[in-house]
Amino acid sequence: MRIDGLTELIVHVGFPTHTFRSPLIYNPYFESIGANVVVVPMACRPEPYPVLLRSVFALDNVRGALITMPHKVRTVELLDVRSPAVEVAGACNAVRRLPDGRLEGDLFDGEGFVRGLTRKGVVLSGARALVVGCGGVGSAIAAALAAAGVADLVVSDVVPAAAQRLAERLQRHFSRTQARSGPADAIDRDLVVNATPLGMHEDDPLPLDISRLRPGTMVGDVVLHTDLTPLLRHAQARGCRVQVGADMLYEQIPAYLEFFGLPSTTPEHLRALSGLEPSVAAMHEEGV
Amino acid sequence: MRIDGLTELIVHVGFPTHTFRSPLIYNPYFESIGANVVVVPMACRPEPYPVLLRSVFALDNVRGALITMPHKVRTVELLDVRSPAVEVAGACNAVRRLPDGRLEGDLFDGEGFVRGLTRKGVVLSGARALVVGCGGVGSAIAAALAAAGVADLVVSDVVPAAAQRLAERLQRHFSRTQARSGPADAIDRDLVVNATPLGMHEDDPLPLDISRLRPGTMVGDVVLHTDLTPLLRHAQARGCRVQVGADMLYEQIPAYLEFFGLPSTTPEHLRALSGLEPSVAAMHEEGV
Repeated sequence: MRIDGLTELIVHVGFPTHTFRSPLIYNPYFESIGANVVVVPMACRPEPYPVLLRSVFALDNVRGALITMPHKVRTVELLDVRSPAVEVAGACNAVRRLPDGRLEGDLFDGEGFVRGLTRKGVVLSGARALVVGCGGVGSAIAAALAAAGVADLVVSDVVPAAAQRLAERLQRHFSRTQARSGPADAIDRDLVVNATPLGMHEDDPLPLDISRLRPGTMVGDVVLHTDLTPLLRHAQARGCRVQVGADMLYEQIPAYLEFFGLPSTTPEHLRALSGLEPSVAAMHEEGV
Repeated sequence: MRIDGLTELIVHVGFPTHTFRSPLIYNPYFESIGANVVVVPMACRPEPYPVLLRSVFALDNVRGALITMPHKVRTVELLDVRSPAVEVAGACNAVRRLPDGRLEGDLFDGEGFVRGLTRKGVVLSGARALVVGCGGVGSAIAAALAAAGVADLVVSDVVPAAAQRLAERLQRHFSRTQARSGPADAIDRDLVVNATPLGMHEDDPLPLDISRLRPGTMVGDVVLHTDLTPLLRHAQARGCRVQVGADMLYEQIPAYLEFFGLPSTTPEHLRALSGLEPSVAAMHEEGV
């Protein structure tokens, strides 16, 4: 890695920064392709953040920003252009400057989840899906599923009003998807997603009634676990295909590269170049 | 060079940035001593600069800023604490954050010049000096000479009022030095400095009457030239010792390291590590 006067910056803004892994993932890749771009951490507390974000994008050599805790929600109001995922989830984790100077934000959690499914051969166009858990990550995944053409999308939450509000936002932004709130019933679903924290601990209750899972249904989990979560183990036992939580994280990275206008590659290639242990816990802490 | 979540930044702010050499000089050194610090360029135009400077110092992991064209004069009014060199020269090329959050600025052009003299064995305490040229660099050198204990300091300029104002600023900040404006007469001087641009071109007039140079006087030049300037050639022929312009630039770098609270080293060590050609013209363009 060689930094000179022509080097462009991608700033990774959050607080605290000590768990950031993005410089270790992106920079070896940029070096390997001869891209004069470098990811640098910026440890920014909440109060100065709005002014900082605008300031760094006033620089000619800032190509983009990765946004993590605690700024993902605050960023939404600072944008000039918001992707549907940002609008639906109310959070943003990537910002770039448009040629006219406006700031555009996107959110790639759900996109990472969908890319993982697509690379496993899952066809989402026309599918029936259930997302259990309507917080930030559930909202992002629901938005990405709708964008990918899911025809019938049920969102479910222990707080029914949260599910209802998410369904309304989905209907507003994705008219081609039938989105509604409802119970966490897997019976007629092609895809079932756990977007709740249930499964982080072995003795958590299951997020849905697994007796309603049919063989062939794809079951995805966002919970980062060193092994399969109880839900995924049950799903496999019932003849379902599964996607683990870490896939969502690693699959996001090429989406960021594309967003920043850089040559992309596979998640596996990035993992190999970084030399990082595929430590799921570390990725989780980072919140990439 | 490995950037991670704990990496501290020294931002090099200027516009344009393409001639910046500082990342190529500092970063190999930081890597060699295991300091988790990196110099990154920030291409900042004049209008957003004041807000940017405050914003970057709101970040917890920014250790300092190197300031170059076109921001060196503007920075002065943005500081909370100014060194005498900044006050006298009206310019600033390095900023750091004090523990209480205030921004402190310094200017190391003159300091670099003085360090070069000291390493050549020149004793400045009690000396009589002449500085010809009272612009930014002449003012900075005059301030550094006064800080180093020069007893009698004549400053001279083709615009006598400029010399008069500089003498007044020197008197205000350095009461132990007798500072006055006057003609560019080298006759009784231990040290003579050319801080005018005269000598950049072979057919420039000499900045002072060399017939008044006594053997043993130290003659320094700020003009960056691939070889000795005509003034320095004449001075050598008359038995004077000389200091070339590039010495001022390279000698500054350890001063910046100390200002930023980092382990320091010699200019020669930094040059060797960087692998840069000692291209005087490139250093000049950068304005380090």
